[in-house]
Amino acid sequence: MNVLKKTSAADLGRVQATIKKELASEKIIQEIYEYIFNAEGKKTRALLCLLASKSQDIKSNSRINLASIIELLHTATLVHDDVVDESELRRGTRSVNQVWTNSYSVLIGDFIYSKAFILMVKLGIPSILDELAKATNDIARGEIIQLELFENKQLIELKDLLKVSYLKTGRLFEASAKTGAMLACRSKEEVKTFGLLGKALGTAFQIQDDILDYEALRLNTGKPALKDFKEGKVTFPLYFALQHANAKDKNFLMSLLGKSKILKKDQNKIYQLIQNEKTQKDINVLLNKYIKETLKHLNNLKHHACYNEMLDLITFSKIRKI
Amino acid sequence: MNVLKKTSAADLGRVQATIKKELASEKIIQEIYEYIFNAEGKKTRALLCLLASKSQDIKSNSRINLASIIELLHTATLVHDDVVDESELRRGTRSVNQVWTNSYSVLIGDFIYSKAFILMVKLGIPSILDELAKATNDIARGEIIQLELFENKQLIELKDLLKVSYLKTGRLFEASAKTGAMLACRSKEEVKTFGLLGKALGTAFQIQDDILDYEALRLNTGKPALKDFKEGKVTFPLYFALQHANAKDKNFLMSLLGKSKILKKDQNKIYQLIQNEKTQKDINVLLNKYIKETLKHLNNLKHHACYNEMLDLITFSKIRKI
Repeated sequence: MNVLKKTSAADLGRVQATIKKELASEKIIQEIYEYIFNAEGKKTRALLCLLASKSQDIKSNSRINLASIIELLHTATLVHDDVVDESELRRGTRSVNQVWTNSYSVLIGDFIYSKAFILMVKLGIPSILDELAKATNDIARGEIIQLELFENKQLIELKDLLKVSYLKTGRLFEASAKTGAMLACRSKEEVKTFGLLGKALGTAFQIQDDILDYEALRLNTGKPALKDFKEGKVTFPLYFALQHANAKDKNFLMSLLGKSKILKKDQNKIYQLIQNEKTQKDINVLLNKYIKETLKHLNNLKHHACYNEMLDLITFSKIRKI
Repeated sequence: MNVLKKTSAADLGRVQATIKKELASEKIIQEIYEYIFNAEGKKTRALLCLLASKSQDIKSNSRINLASIIELLHTATLVHDDVVDESELRRGTRSVNQVWTNSYSVLIGDFIYSKAFILMVKLGIPSILDELAKATNDIARGEIIQLELFENKQLIELKDLLKVSYLKTGRLFEASAKTGAMLACRSKEEVKTFGLLGKALGTAFQIQDDILDYEALRLNTGKPALKDFKEGKVTFPLYFALQHANAKDKNFLMSLLGKSKILKKDQNKIYQLIQNEKTQKDINVLLNKYIKETLKHLNNLKHHACYNEMLDLITFSKIRKI
């Protein structure tokens, strides 16, 4: 993202290099890694951790290592998600399970998870180990709850979507910020503030992600459009659209949800229904609520070296198109 | 297994109870857990750990917890293996992916893995954390290497099968014995001996497992027969049978390998080829080699409280039919 300061961009480069260095063992694993990590993501969670761990008293290596661990954990969940979602595309390129089969995806995910745990043990800070093990468990729990939830799509409530969003996305954002602050030996109060900021930012990030699944129909960013919709996912925009749609339109949406092929004219109709004024209002109110929440917590961190960059990251999260 | 002493049987009961207690959170997860853990396994790895950790100076709770962690790690690998192998049966009952779909298998495996890591962090012994994180990584690596190996089944060598057996099975046996000894604060030398014993025992265990895949055709133990063969796996008995078969029989075996339906008469022919005198000699020589290796290491543990039970476990591993 172009809001990055030079130092943070350099830090993220070192995160990338650390991951590459750690992942070269068996040839086949190396190939898969190169495939996954060439399709570079934004590394938002790693950046959040790097910002929260800013401190003059801390060895730069351990900051990079912690951010690398978090990026590895996130990547492992992406690889396993692709099996769960039966995805064909991830980050605009074909997903691991399309290139190598589901079996490789499951195993490579396990390999990356356990690699992250090896590095965590090496880092040697029990409170950070505890937080990241719990976050990993919560992410899996969130995915399981989501699977169950989607079996009765008509009954989904906003609170269900918020719970799943927190567990699937907010939880690792929370852990990234918290463990960053823990690494920098911040006070208990400040670690808590970073955690709350991360949690709210993660939820905002997920809401914007859900919006972009539909906006990709109009934007030319290379991101595949209607991926969530074709996978049968009820996300925030669709939830609100269903609330405001008449019976006929509701049936229309539900009849196409989960279909892998959707005609161009139907895609346009779906986009229109999401663009409904009331739906757009609801989704923006929700997004703004979580952005405001992040800013409230950031307000308690004015003294912190990360303040300006964190403000940039929050602003970016709200307006990002990638 | 009926070789168990009363105290060890009681310990394994406590392991089972600990796992159940730890795994009750979301309803759906509880259901899956009950399903998995009702299909009770032998808990050989947990027992190995309980034996290696025997000591008067150690809190009984931490022994049970460590054995539970190891059983959880093992269960997570089984659940993920079922996706990789597209298994229909596991421990004689339908596997998780048949009852719930692959998606649940992937996520429930992740949930169990991360639960094991949470408990490891709680146990709070860095050397044990390190060993188990590395073992988990090696298991995934072994599975990936096996997948790659099976793409060129004609080229498989005995050393490849031994490497995969070590990583997939021997490695967790090794870690179970080593971490048990670490928990009991044994000397570096003794921890090493337990590790080597576990490693050899795990390989012997895998060889006997491979034998039982074919013997199940004759035994009435409820274990499904030719599961490995139908999944296309070249195991130790098949490897030796292929070495000794003439061109016609070799073609016969290779043409059926990986087929999910095999006629009764063909099953009989496969069994005959495995029963070939030279094949049986080779497989027994290999099994005995690893059993002897375990006994050599056990010989250095005559003073240890686990000696008699460990001897029983080794003897059982060689003759077991379940």
